[in-house]
Formats: sequence, structure tokens, C-alpha cells
Amino acid sequence: MQHESFLNIAVKYKAVFLDAYGVLKNYKGLIAGVPDTIDFLRSKGIALRILTNDASRSQEQQAEGFCKLGLTGFEPSEIITSGMMAKMFLQQKILSGKIAYLGTENSAYYILQSGLEHIAVRDIDLEHVDDISAFVFLDDEGFDWNIDINKTVNLLRHKNIPIVVANSDKLYPVSRNHVSVATGGIAKLVESMLHKKFIHFGKPDSQMFMYAFAELNRTGDFNRHEILMVGDTLHTDILGGNKFGVKTTLVLSGNTSAEDADLEINSSGIIPDYICRSIVS
Amino acid sequence: MQHESFLNIAVKYKAVFLDAYGVLKNYKGLIAGVPDTIDFLRSKGIALRILTNDASRSQEQQAEGFCKLGLTGFEPSEIITSGMMAKMFLQQKILSGKIAYLGTENSAYYILQSGLEHIAVRDIDLEHVDDISAFVFLDDEGFDWNIDINKTVNLLRHKNIPIVVANSDKLYPVSRNHVSVATGGIAKLVESMLHKKFIHFGKPDSQMFMYAFAELNRTGDFNRHEILMVGDTLHTDILGGNKFGVKTTLVLSGNTSAEDADLEINSSGIIPDYICRSIVS
Amino acid sequence: MQHESFLNIAVKYKAVFLDAYGVLKNYKGLIAGVPDTIDFLRSKGIALRILTNDASRSQEQQAEGFCKLGLTGFEPSEIITSGMMAKMFLQQKILSGKIAYLGTENSAYYILQSGLEHIAVRDIDLEHVDDISAFVFLDDEGFDWNIDINKTVNLLRHKNIPIVVANSDKLYPVSRNHVSVATGGIAKLVESMLHKKFIHFGKPDSQMFMYAFAELNRTGDFNRHEILMVGDTLHTDILGGNKFGVKTTLVLSGNTSAEDADLEINSSGIIPDYICRSIVS
Amino acid sequence: MQHESFLNIAVKYKAVFLDAYGVLKNYKGLIAGVPDTIDFLRSKGIALRILTNDASRSQEQQAEGFCKLGLTGFEPSEIITSGMMAKMFLQQKILSGKIAYLGTENSAYYILQSGLEHIAVRDIDLEHVDDISAFVFLDDEGFDWNIDINKTVNLLRHKNIPIVVANSDKLYPVSRNHVSVATGGIAKLVESMLHKKFIHFGKPDSQMFMYAFAELNRTGDFNRHEILMVGDTLHTDILGGNKFGVKTTLVLSGNTSAEDADLEINSSGIIPDYICRSIVS
Repeated sequence: MQHESFLNIAVKYKAVFLDAYGVLKNYKGLIAGVPDTIDFLRSKGIALRILTNDASRSQEQQAEGFCKLGLTGFEPSEIITSGMMAKMFLQQKILSGKIAYLGTENSAYYILQSGLEHIAVRDIDLEHVDDISAFVFLDDEGFDWNIDINKTVNLLRHKNIPIVVANSDKLYPVSRNHVSVATGGIAKLVESMLHKKFIHFGKPDSQMFMYAFAELNRTGDFNRHEILMVGDTLHTDILGGNKFGVKTTLVLSGNTSAEDADLEINSSGIIPDYICRSIVS
Repeated sequence: MQHESFLNIAVKYKAVFLDAYGVLKNYKGLIAGVPDTIDFLRSKGIALRILTNDASRSQEQQAEGFCKLGLTGFEPSEIITSGMMAKMFLQQKILSGKIAYLGTENSAYYILQSGLEHIAVRDIDLEHVDDISAFVFLDDEGFDWNIDINKTVNLLRHKNIPIVVANSDKLYPVSRNHVSVATGGIAKLVESMLHKKFIHFGKPDSQMFMYAFAELNRTGDFNRHEILMVGDTLHTDILGGNKFGVKTTLVLSGNTSAEDADLEINSSGIIPDYICRSIVS
Repeated sequence: MQHESFLNIAVKYKAVFLDAYGVLKNYKGLIAGVPDTIDFLRSKGIALRILTNDASRSQEQQAEGFCKLGLTGFEPSEIITSGMMAKMFLQQKILSGKIAYLGTENSAYYILQSGLEHIAVRDIDLEHVDDISAFVFLDDEGFDWNIDINKTVNLLRHKNIPIVVANSDKLYPVSRNHVSVATGGIAKLVESMLHKKFIHFGKPDSQMFMYAFAELNRTGDFNRHEILMVGDTLHTDILGGNKFGVKTTLVLSGNTSAEDADLEINSSGIIPDYICRSIVS
Repeated sequence: MQHESFLNIAVKYKAVFLDAYGVLKNYKGLIAGVPDTIDFLRSKGIALRILTNDASRSQEQQAEGFCKLGLTGFEPSEIITSGMMAKMFLQQKILSGKIAYLGTENSAYYILQSGLEHIAVRDIDLEHVDDISAFVFLDDEGFDWNIDINKTVNLLRHKNIPIVVANSDKLYPVSRNHVSVATGGIAKLVESMLHKKFIHFGKPDSQMFMYAFAELNRTGDFNRHEILMVGDTLHTDILGGNKFGVKTTLVLSGNTSAEDADLEINSSGIIPDYICRSIVS
């Protein structure tokens, strides 16, 4: 497929959904030129939303994080995370008992703050689990899950409760060449050990698309073909966008390299509507 | 889990989503008592929608079909099918070329009628496929796919286009003890042969839930926890409803027998909020 | 990886195992030059065996088939098929009852001839299946499985018996660009519908390697590192050979093209010890 | 299925293959009565082999371990482990370079002692990996893989080498109700992250069956139907034994409880020839 100019494409749309990592920023910080692109899109009256597989920080913390990197102007409400979706799910579906979690206290704080009690899996007494009513895999950047993972398996073998994965990414980048196992990978491992179906939040699943689309339509009248999803990963951003029915742009500034793009598209059957080097071009 | 009275549960909700096969009807026709339950729910002002994995007939044909069975009063607009979702997707995303399909002309008629040209895979000349821009697996009740399946594989091996599965069910019931392979099974086979990702419509995927939820909210103000999804199959109705965040009821009048319910819930980890013998109790 | 001369490699080994399709022959017939290579290997005293995923013909029929193509000199006992392995399994493990099968009478004839009665699935009365003690998916070249597949599903849903797949290949080539769905694909479809484990025969599974290795060691003293497996398919020939512990050569005269070889090796992690254009070079 | 007396069954066979955990011992030590059963079988002239998915200790250490528990008389050569199979594979197939591993030094010691240099993944400098020629997932009882797993992923993303899993069990029991994640689970996680095919050793794969069968036939003349495999796990012991073509007995003294046996057999399609409470009955 031919590479096109992102700005030429974007101006044809009423709204643009942006993945964060690999599109706006990378392991070194903000991608050069991104603030200008964002300013330009806003100047054209294009609505923007960030859709990110992340369950470690609240919308406010996310917005602050972008500010610190030098990307100002994003309202917390314009940033939609898989963690928010998990939080809303728990609020709607789990009405009593305690929510157990694997992850850091920080991520637990904002996802589990409202309503029910929550408890880290390491603090659970496996002989007394009657009041545990749900389990959440939270984000784990820098989290040592070596011991807690065994406790998680033993809890979930014996107790049949809804199990939620707040970020389904299997790995996250830590430097140009290196990645770490992420919470979604651990969840997949436990899922395969228990032969159970967990409820996954995060692209390619549609919850964030749905939420962004519904919110957008409170502020105006947006049709799916008037929306462009931009991402660096075929199996999350592009597959999710295609399934939801919006147009999709693959950028080559992150997970998918220019050399491999055509090949990966061909072998996966996941076909973006456009390919661009980055959003800065 | 304890079995509860369906009517006692249903009256606590503002809307009820119903699966068709195994809930309203079975291989013999309408399940006895269903019209009374439907009348009762309507008399209480509860909004009703039927969500069915079916891509063989239009909403109007579906409504007529229920009338013929003796279940009157369902508007075409109250019946949401996986085929409709596939149709909307194609309208939004495929703007030029011809749409190739596997299935009967009848199902092709209503899904592919608007806009683009369509062509049955058996009528394709595999040497001239430049103008084929998408492929759809349609419903196949009574369809002999023995030859067409090979042509489908050969087309899709060489041409990388969006591939849509209009009904992801792997089998459909033909009598009390017997089933037939359905289009979703054939699609899975081809998917595994090609190692590609197709776009599947139908429960447990969320498109029908999304659509029903959005339509409902044009007529009033419905929150997810005020909606009850009712189905006979854990892996489609209940998993899909749980993921979407509505409450779920498993009924034992179809795919899941009373003897096996607890066991299947335990071994799958797919947990309905309620279990009822049927909607007539 | 660099391509090497096959003959230079082969002479370092005491025995060579050869896949048939894509190595010795293709859709047009014998690959040019193959008889000379075979003669050369024999002249060097190298033991030869053909290991082929095929369950449609007996060893004798196979040897005759090669003769007709112009490759003489292979003894029936030098040709090992997945069908033979299935036959031996049934003889060892199924000692009473009738063996039901999906496939043509011709393939049934040689696999099921000895011992027990057998019955085509189309001839079964699904109300009387008490005496059915095992089921076999046979090879199906030119076989119309459209009706029989449904009967197979209905039989195997209700009766828990050993289920054997006599050839696990998902597709077979019918011309340069075209393939057909094969019995292994149908078996996979049924397996996924029933969530059951079938017993698969054929590479990459080790039964044929084991058998060839044991037979070889009746005629002399062969160590695994003295044996070379040659095939055109990474996921069957090379993966199977690697697992069994023999050396492996990928040839580019069949399934794997010269352009794609490095890429497929890299993305699959299945690494042959050597790569050659063909066995004629 | 009906439960039968193990001794009545066993005496009909010339050789018995025994799984260790859940058959001979459990988390508390030797299962009561086991030494008597073993003595009885030996007195009848039945050949015995232990086939165990274990890569942490050598045959000698295994035999000593059984002695300490009170089960004397097993020669090291009668105990076959998945670790031995991995060791033999590496000796046959990897002839130069260094073998990297994930696991403890103790398990590395015996598997990797002969021939090539080996290096723990934690000691690898990821910038200098030219001489790494293979990778092994070793057993990890009590091993903290939290950091090393990330290094493993980063090594194997960039370097395409044969990857061996010396024990494919996903978990191991640590007490009556509790399990720990095992090396096979970690390997599966990495396999799914990299989309690569690793080479797995351990039941249900056939390498140990093959080895035991070949060794046995150096000491006499054993046919497969004269051999009985005994195990407590359908997906490893019974599936592996069935595939290999020997007779199989499921015992209910380990992983599979008496209540669940019929159900698990029915839902998996893995059918043992016999079921016994234990080998002591």
C-alpha cells in the first residue's frame, strides 16, 4: 500500500481517535512535531479523543502526564482508557462483596476507589474468601507478580467469580528494543491454566470505541464513516477500528515498521484504510 | 445456583433483550406460554428487543416469521440480527468494487441489496478478481457449500480484502437431537487455513448490544444495569451480555440443560446473574 | 539462510527421509531430475524412506503410483503413510464393535480391511449406534462431505468413542494456484465444534518418524543425527523432523517459495538445518 | 465407566508405565500401599518404568528421591524424565555455540553438563548474543522468574534459535489445594507473545513413550498392546498413552477426582481403557 500524508487524510474527517503509545509518544517522550499536528487538527474543528490500553492512571493523571511531556490542551474527558471501562463494568455489575486485584495499590486506587471494598491478592487469606465477589487484573508496570500470581491461580481455581482484565496488552515497551510482560499476558496465562473466559477491556474490544462514539454524539452528530482511528498496531488499533466500523490509519512510528507493514497486513488480513509514516507528515 | 421465577426478575428491569432460538422458539415452533409472557412484559411497560445471530432474513421477514408461529406484536425494528450489523458495516466501510459472498441468493438479497454489486463465489472467475473488494460469509441453511468452499479458500488465499462473517454460530439445530454445521463453522475453518482475522458479527461480539442500546436510548433514558439479557447459551448470550455490562439470565429451555448448567458455568467461568427454567415460569 | 547443494548435504547422512508432495512430485507429475537424485543416493548406499501424509492408498498403491509417474525402485515397505499409522492404531486399540468412517470406500478398504467391521457414516442409523466403537476421518480427495459432515457431528456429539484423523493436512493442492479443503481441515472443524481431542496421525506428529526409525534399525544401526528429513513445509516436515531429533532440510520446490522462506522461518521459529532449492541441485 | 481393581488389570500386561505424581506419590509423600503394589508387579515379572514430566533432577537423583520416600528398588534407568529427552535433543541437534536457559543452576547442571557451554539468561548481555545457539526452559520449582522472563522475551524476539521446553506442565502441586505456575506455563506465555513454535518435551508428546518402548525392546519383545500406561491426568498421561497406542488406566488418586472423572472424559473425548481408584486397590 502507498503511504499518504496524514494531514491530507485527517482533514476529511469530523473526529480523530488516537492511540497514545507509538502515535503521540514513545519510550523517549513525545514524538517530535506532535503538538503542531494536534494544534492543526483542533484549528480545523476536528474532535479528538485518545484511546489507550492503560489501567494504571486516571484520566486526570493521563492528561497531566501529556502536559509534562509537552502536549498541552487535552482535557481529561478526551482521554479514554481501558481502566475506565473496567471501572464502569465493576460499578454496573458487581454490587456487593469485595473486589480482589493483582497489581499495584496506585492503579487499584482509582479503579476501585468508589463503592466496594478492595483487597490485594497478596493480602487475601485463601481459607477465607467467601466475601470476594470479583477479581481484576490491573496494570503492573514495575510490579513484581512472582508470588502473587500463584495466589491468584489458587484463588480463582476454587472460586467462580467474574474476572476482569483491565488492560489486555501482553507486553509494553521499556526502551527502543526492549519490552516487559504486561498484565494482559499474565491474565492470558492464568486463563489458559484455568480454561476460563475472562472479560477483557482494551482494544481491539469495542468498549472504548463505543464509549468515545457515544460521548462524541452528545456534543454533535457523528457518523462512523466520519471518524478516523489512528494507531501503530494492527491487532489492537486497526482490528478494533475496523470491527467498530470507523476508518483506520496505520502509522509506522511505533510497533509496525515500514519494512514489515505490507507483509504483516497481508499475513494477518487486518487491512487499514490508510498507511502513514506518522501523524507528523 | 438457584433457579428463580423469570417474571419476578424481569419486572425489576426497564428493558429486556431476548435471544430467539431456545428462548422464544425451538425446533418444534413457539415455546408454549411465550406469548403470555411477552404480553405481560409489555403490559408492565418493559421495552423488548430480540437479539438473534441470524443472517438469512431481513427484519421484516423475521417479524413475519414470528407472526406465523403465533407470536404477534413484534415490530421489525424490535428485532436485531447479526446480518443487519454486517450490512451496516459493509455500507460504512466498503465504498467501491464488488462484494463476493458464500451463501444463498436469498440471504444475499437483503444484506447486499443496497449500493454495491455483489457476486456469488461460485460465479467468480478466479483469474479475474481485481474488482472484488470484500467477502461475506452469509447464512447457509440448506446450502450446499461443498464446492464453493474450495473456491472461497482459493480466492481469499490470493486476494487480501476485508472478510466478514454475518453469523458466527458454528452450528444450528435442526431437530431435538440433531444439528447442522453453520456458516460460522465454515468461516472458522477457512480462517484457520489462511491464518487471517475475519470480522465476526453476532453475539458474544458487542455490535448488536451496542445497536439495541443506542436505539433504546433514542426512545428514553436507559442505563445498562436497567437492562436484562436473556439467553440459552453461555458462550454467546451470557458472555456477550456480561461483557456489555447488562444483567444476564440463563434459561434452561434450549442449549443448556438443567443438569449441566452449574457444571458449565463453573468450568467456563461465564456466570449469569440469574438462572430460570424458561421465560414461562 | 544460505541455500546449499542438496547432494553435497545428503551424502553426509546414512539415511534420508523424503516427503512426497513438493519434494518428489507436484501437481504436474514428477519433478524433473528426481529419478537421478534418487539413483545417486542409492548408489552411495544411503537408505531412503518416503514419509507422506496420505490416507487414501496402501503402500502397494503408492509404490505403483510412483512407478507410473516414472520413479521406479521404491519398495512398498519404503513408503510410510499416515494412513498406515491410523490402521496400526486401530488394530492395537480397538478390539470390538464397528468402526465408523467419513471418506470414500476406497480409502476405507485398505485402512479398515482387517479385523473389525466398518461402516460409512452415511449408512449409519443415528438411532442405533450402540455397536460403533471408534470413528475415523479418512482421506477425501474428490469426496463430497456436505451431508456426511452433519451426520458425523451428530454421531460424535452423542457417543464418546476414540476419534482418529488419518491425515491431518488441512488442504491439498489441485493445481499450481489452487487447493482443496482436506480431511484434516474437516476434522479440525468438528473438533472445535465438539471441544474434543481427536488423535491425529501425520507429520508433524511423530508416529511416522518413529516407525521409519524403528524399521531402519532392524536393518542396521542408525543414530538420529545420521538421518536427514527433507520436506517443503515448515509446519509438518521440518517441525516434525526437528522434534524427533533428526536433521532437517527445507526444499523450495513446493509449499514454501524462495522469496518467503526466510520470513516464514523467522516468524514461525521453525528452523531447518539446511535450505535447498530442491533435491535436484 | 466402572472402576476396576488395578491389580487384576495389571497382571494381564507385560509392562506397566507409571506416572509419578498422583500415582506413586502426592504432596504428602508416598501414597500408602504403593511399595506393596510395586513389589507385587515385580514378583509377577512385569517390567516397570516411571514416565515423569520433570526436568529438575537427573535419573539418579530421582531414584534417590523415591528411596528417601520409602520406595526402593527403582533403578535410575527405569525412570524416564522429560528433562532427559530435552538433553538428548540438545546433544543431537545443537553442535556449537552456547545454550541459554531460564531456570535454576541445579537443573541446568545435569541437562546441560555435557558438551556445550551454557549460560543463565540473567547473565546474558543482550547486546552480545551472537554465540547463543539455543534456548531451554528448565524446571523452576522455587525459582523467581520475575526479571528473567522479560530478559527471555527480549532475547527471543531478536534471535531466531531453537527453543526447547524441558517440561511442558503448566502448573505443579504444592499442597492439597494449592498449585504453582510451572515452567511450561511460562513457556506458553512467551510462545503466545512471540507467535513462535517451541519444541515441547513431556507427556502427552510421545518422546518419553518412544524412549521407554525402545529401551524395553532391547531387553525383550514387547508389543504396544502388552503395555499399560497408568496416570492421573487425562490431557498428559492418558492422551499421550492413547496416541502412542498402548492401553491406558486413569487413577483417581491425583489430579482427577472420582466425582469429575466421567464428566471430564465425556467433555474432553480422552477415553482411558480402564479407571481405577488408585494402584493400591
